[in-house]
Amino acid sequence: MQVINLTEKFSRFTEQWTPKIAGELNGQYLKLAKLKGEFLWHSHDDEDELFMVIKGTLILDFRDRTETIREGEIIIVPKGIEHRPRTGDEEVHVMLFEPKSTKHTGEVEHQRTVKELEWV
Amino acid sequence: MQVINLTEKFSRFTEQWTPKIAGELNGQYLKLAKLKGEFLWHSHDDEDELFMVIKGTLILDFRDRTETIREGEIIIVPKGIEHRPRTGDEEVHVMLFEPKSTKHTGEVEHQRTVKELEWV
Repeated sequence: MQVINLTEKFSRFTEQWTPKIAGELNGQYLKLAKLKGEFLWHSHDDEDELFMVIKGTLILDFRDRTETIREGEIIIVPKGIEHRPRTGDEEVHVMLFEPKSTKHTGEVEHQRTVKELEWV
Repeated sequence: MQVINLTEKFSRFTEQWTPKIAGELNGQYLKLAKLKGEFLWHSHDDEDELFMVIKGTLILDFRDRTETIREGEIIIVPKGIEHRPRTGDEEVHVMLFEPKSTKHTGEVEHQRTVKELEWV
C-alpha cells in the first residue's frame, strides 16, 4: 500500500494513447493516460468508463453531441455508448477508472490497441 | 451522462463524515466527503477503498504506521486492513471510490454510520 502521486506517475512515461496502470481495486484498474490529437470511435459492451481530467481539456464526441471536460472534472461513459476522445493542441492528462477487462479501443481492434498494459 | 465538476459538487453540502454519491459505474460508487477531526478505526471485510485528496491533507492511521495523503494524491486501502482517517485543523475534501455495498464505518456500527447515502 503506497501513496500514489499523480504528478510523479505522469512524469514516468511519455507515450500518448497508451494507458498505464496506477492501481487496482475490486476488479477495477486505475489508469493514467496522456492524450493528444484524436482517438478512434469506440464503445465498451460491458464496461462503464470514468474519465477524470488531471491536466488540460478533454473533448468527448458522442454520436448526438460533444462534451468538454476540464481540469478537475469527471465524466462517466455508460457501457455501449460510442465515444471518441480528442484534444486541442495541448497534451491532456487523464485518470481512468474501469474494470480490468476493459480494452481502451473497446470492441474495435486497431493498430492503437495495446495488448498488455504496463504498470507505472 | 453529465460532466461532474468537483468544486461545484462540494459546494452543495456542508456535513462532515457523510459521504455523498456523485457517480455510479460498474457496481461502484464515486463518493465525495468532507472530513475534519478524527474518524473511528474500521475496516471493510470485502471491499478495497480508494481515497483521492481533492483539498487539504488526509492522514490515515494504520495499526503499524501512518500515511499522509496530500492534494492530488491517492491511496488504495485493501480489504480487511484497519484504518482511521483523520485531519489537521483544516477541513479535507476527498473523493472515494468503492463498491456500492461499502459502509463508510466498515464492520463497525456507530452513531456516525449513515444508513442511506444521498446523491449530490
